[in-house]
Amino acid sequence: MILDYDIIVIGGGHAGCEAASAAARLGSRTLLLTMDMTKMASMSCNPAIGGVAKGQIVREIDALGGETGRITDLTAVQFRMLNRSKGAAMWSPRAQCDKTRFSEEWRRTLENTRHLYIWQDAATELLFDTSAETPRIRGVRTRMGVEFSCRAAVLTAGTFLEGMMHCGASHAEGGRAGDAASHGITECLRRLGFETGRMKTGTPARLDARTINFDALEPQYGDENPSKFSFSPDTQPVKHQLPCFLVYTTPEVHAILRSGFDRSPLFNGTIRGIGPRYCPSIEDKLRTFADKEQHQLFLEPEGESTNEYYLNGFSSSLPWEVQWEALHKITGFEDLHIFRPGYAIEYDYFPPTQLHHSLETKLVRGLYFAGQVNGTTGYEEAAAQGLMAGINAHRALAGKEPVVLKRDEAYIGVLIDDLVTKGVDEPYRMFTSRAEYRILLRQDNADIRLTPLGYEIGLISRKRYDHFVKKNSLVESLVAFARGESVKAAEINGYLKTVGSDPLTQGRKLHDILMRNNVTFESLQKVLPKLKKFIESNGMDAEVVEEAEIQIKYKGYIEREKFIAEKLHRLENIAIPSDFDFHSLNSLTIEARQKLTRIRPATIGQASRIPGVSPADVNVLLVKFGR
Amino acid sequence: MILDYDIIVIGGGHAGCEAASAAARLGSRTLLLTMDMTKMASMSCNPAIGGVAKGQIVREIDALGGETGRITDLTAVQFRMLNRSKGAAMWSPRAQCDKTRFSEEWRRTLENTRHLYIWQDAATELLFDTSAETPRIRGVRTRMGVEFSCRAAVLTAGTFLEGMMHCGASHAEGGRAGDAASHGITECLRRLGFETGRMKTGTPARLDARTINFDALEPQYGDENPSKFSFSPDTQPVKHQLPCFLVYTTPEVHAILRSGFDRSPLFNGTIRGIGPRYCPSIEDKLRTFADKEQHQLFLEPEGESTNEYYLNGFSSSLPWEVQWEALHKITGFEDLHIFRPGYAIEYDYFPPTQLHHSLETKLVRGLYFAGQVNGTTGYEEAAAQGLMAGINAHRALAGKEPVVLKRDEAYIGVLIDDLVTKGVDEPYRMFTSRAEYRILLRQDNADIRLTPLGYEIGLISRKRYDHFVKKNSLVESLVAFARGESVKAAEINGYLKTVGSDPLTQGRKLHDILMRNNVTFESLQKVLPKLKKFIESNGMDAEVVEEAEIQIKYKGYIEREKFIAEKLHRLENIAIPSDFDFHSLNSLTIEARQKLTRIRPATIGQASRIPGVSPADVNVLLVKFGR
Repeated sequence: MILDYDIIVIGGGHAGCEAASAAARLGSRTLLLTMDMTKMASMSCNPAIGGVAKGQIVREIDALGGETGRITDLTAVQFRMLNRSKGAAMWSPRAQCDKTRFSEEWRRTLENTRHLYIWQDAATELLFDTSAETPRIRGVRTRMGVEFSCRAAVLTAGTFLEGMMHCGASHAEGGRAGDAASHGITECLRRLGFETGRMKTGTPARLDARTINFDALEPQYGDENPSKFSFSPDTQPVKHQLPCFLVYTTPEVHAILRSGFDRSPLFNGTIRGIGPRYCPSIEDKLRTFADKEQHQLFLEPEGESTNEYYLNGFSSSLPWEVQWEALHKITGFEDLHIFRPGYAIEYDYFPPTQLHHSLETKLVRGLYFAGQVNGTTGYEEAAAQGLMAGINAHRALAGKEPVVLKRDEAYIGVLIDDLVTKGVDEPYRMFTSRAEYRILLRQDNADIRLTPLGYEIGLISRKRYDHFVKKNSLVESLVAFARGESVKAAEINGYLKTVGSDPLTQGRKLHDILMRNNVTFESLQKVLPKLKKFIESNGMDAEVVEEAEIQIKYKGYIEREKFIAEKLHRLENIAIPSDFDFHSLNSLTIEARQKLTRIRPATIGQASRIPGVSPADVNVLLVKFGR
Repeated sequence: MILDYDIIVIGGGHAGCEAASAAARLGSRTLLLTMDMTKMASMSCNPAIGGVAKGQIVREIDALGGETGRITDLTAVQFRMLNRSKGAAMWSPRAQCDKTRFSEEWRRTLENTRHLYIWQDAATELLFDTSAETPRIRGVRTRMGVEFSCRAAVLTAGTFLEGMMHCGASHAEGGRAGDAASHGITECLRRLGFETGRMKTGTPARLDARTINFDALEPQYGDENPSKFSFSPDTQPVKHQLPCFLVYTTPEVHAILRSGFDRSPLFNGTIRGIGPRYCPSIEDKLRTFADKEQHQLFLEPEGESTNEYYLNGFSSSLPWEVQWEALHKITGFEDLHIFRPGYAIEYDYFPPTQLHHSLETKLVRGLYFAGQVNGTTGYEEAAAQGLMAGINAHRALAGKEPVVLKRDEAYIGVLIDDLVTKGVDEPYRMFTSRAEYRILLRQDNADIRLTPLGYEIGLISRKRYDHFVKKNSLVESLVAFARGESVKAAEINGYLKTVGSDPLTQGRKLHDILMRNNVTFESLQKVLPKLKKFIESNGMDAEVVEEAEIQIKYKGYIEREKFIAEKLHRLENIAIPSDFDFHSLNSLTIEARQKLTRIRPATIGQASRIPGVSPADVNVLLVKFGR
């Protein structure tokens, strides 16, 4: 007997949960195959969601109708808007979550999602229909011998494929501390011609709060008026916040760590997988910044009901004794007990240039990859890919075009375009610097950018969409009000002096005044009763006011980026036939011909971003395919 | 570097959690080694605690100062006192628990137990000091290469030692669905001369509540006035109860199941481990009761926040398709989705005749075994052994005599004496019929039997002990009141008629009237204002009144059992030297000499219970060792 589903999602991590949720909510009969139902969207590394660029991604996931933002809000134990002192493009929400609750909330959500079915077992084999020229996915077989058929599948196996954990000279098979590795899938795909590689990531020791002298540490509290991730009115900002703590290494700590370098699997050749440059192990940091006398670490609570703390910044695969000794030299950790040492993990990934922008593989129709199997790192990056893969798997079955976000529309667009166009040579993490249009891709306007699309796709409810439209029209009317409203010098000069701004010599539009530094709607309301009345009588909340202010203050930057983006869209709109023979274009460099043949860009825009394709090559393509 | 502890407990199941908690609370620096901190005391099979005989064990654990009863109360979602209609000796408390909460509450408890340290990793090697004649445990090594030293260790590895799961023709290594097996320990022990064997247990499919037609099923609700497990005043009876449901197989279901028998690993020789006779798989039941047209199954909720249901009575290792098809023929399950099929699991155990009554192994000093490694089945049996092993490991290090409960003191005494004296030939489960003195070993008087001992051991606080003493003195004063108080015929004959009891012809003591059927303190209070006043003015709650009533009603039985028990104690008090050469006693039968040499009973009482030792052999021993 074979159980039949439209879509099978393999893996219940952050990618798999979003993929399964999206596909099912869109109406596909979806099976989520996971090795352990109690660890849905497990925070295998640090117990936090968001941060710089990652926070923006979560806001985008939320605007498109994904679940990560909502579940973060429901389970947060601390919220901070990072980079508040910088420009609005850099503001980045970040939350500490209760790890157990986060998983439990995801499980509850998925168990109650219509059309979604969960099955606990490990996938060990992918089944293909190879009768057509391009093979098609047709099913999955599990470790316990159960066979499922499907028309599409999303592989989100995280670090589990042939996972191998390292700690000093010890190594053991496993997908995560306490969990078994998964075998078989890589081999299935290799046989079909997929390239595979090894990547590496790591995690720090987990500490027992009872044995930490918190009085010796510097607490870091959440925001006084915490915000939240989801644009939905159904979640609330976190009420009871827990602090994190700052902790510092010392030269003595470094000396102990260095004494173990010869036994580090990272340095002695045992680990061959490539690690995340931007989330380095403590030993990597000591090597890279050899003169630095101290490194700052963050101590993060794992939840309200546990004494477990996560030591952010101390990821390590040094022998456990070295970790133990070094930790005990850190102020506050003199009597430390740990629940487990840090370790590194190596796992299989598939270079993502083997994917279309839809996240469907080029070699197998109906098979989508999302998350760490694509060489990324981070819950947020995984969740974003999972969401898009789930959406696109469903749309393909429904005969619809895939949803492909552009680079000026979303960080998610940047993420996926980078993956499929440039590939990865180390675990890929999102940064604001990866985006050309980061003034456009703000966390505050993710709803404006993407809620209409989420609604069109079918993941945003009518109610939520109406809520969005209303908010957006309030923002627009406040901007219009500011544009139309004149302010007299006498009304405002006293205020302007208090914020260190030059006095007016004649009346000006409120809009122009708002563009000045330090001038805010909030403070202006106190001196302009008409403004205050307009805001209050229209029921404009802080979110609306803030959004209008950002639109006014950054208007120039925003318009310039929009202009550039639109210019470049021309290139994005020039398609390259998928079967085009680049070797026939002699004027292309050899390198460009090879790279273009390997990546098979869908547009000249994509071709222009492939490393090794020069502006001159782009011109050759323009001559060939441009109008 | 080697981290040093007094006691290391290997395994975080029901046995390991009780062992670690007890040892640490008594003051031993204790390490609990577990493969997964998120699964402390995981209810790997059904989500319930207690039941016939098992409920009594939990009450005993509680009276001794163990945690299982308290945590059950905190996480119960249904409570029933089974066998209420039978005699008080048969009353057995049973609770459905929220599986996730149960584990979480245990974790919270352990994380906050002084002197207790948790480490997440798998033990793969036991280290011995073999310089003395009898080797001594000296440490444990883990899969990630960490070495710990200790002076005592408790092995509670459950089903994980070389665990192998079976489902039809499929089999896979593992200690539990989703969790890896543990390797290495068995081999270490075999090298030292330990006998080992294989046992087998199984678990049924887990069902998705959304796909069950509950309207077609018969609900089974909890007690209207639920009681609780712990004698401590700190827990409360469950407030919000969930129902279970009765479900029935049919001849059609049976026919489908039978069609898979040739592919059953139980029947085709794949599984060689011995399964639990009293917790049989559905296929075993069909074989054993071939004419039965239906079997009753219980559908149990796994918790408040999940749709997962456990199908008690349908444990199976038949091919998953057979399970699936059969389930779909059950009324209410027409549209069923399952989260996973049932499976059987084989694992290593150590015949428990290799243990002293303290649960210390005879071959290795300082090494204790508890739980399924001793060939038992059941959370309660495991927890009880864990508690005693934890207590005795601590006491040995403190130079104290082990605590050994007698067969007339506790089911726990029966359990351990059965294990070490008789051994097991199938997974051992407790039944009331295993106890000679079941009128003495009631659930209601577990506190009277064992709280003073728990206090003496050091696991019952002074406050809790004072609470017990007060309750007990209230019980005694109520019994004394009943014994002294005369009741006139005129006062009571009206009442006696209503309960179908003969009228009095002359005044009688209240005590004698209470011995009659259907006469209860509760109803008597309505007709005897003096009784009511006595109970109320002394603040006697329902528990006190019930206990007094049971003592009065069962007085004759209780005294007879006490008399017999005391007679037999004589045999228990006659020690046999541990190095005695039974082969030197020619008048013993050959079989008796062999069995006695293998088991090495500590007393003639224990010798008399060894299968194969006859009353005549006992007399020979009495001549040799009796006064």
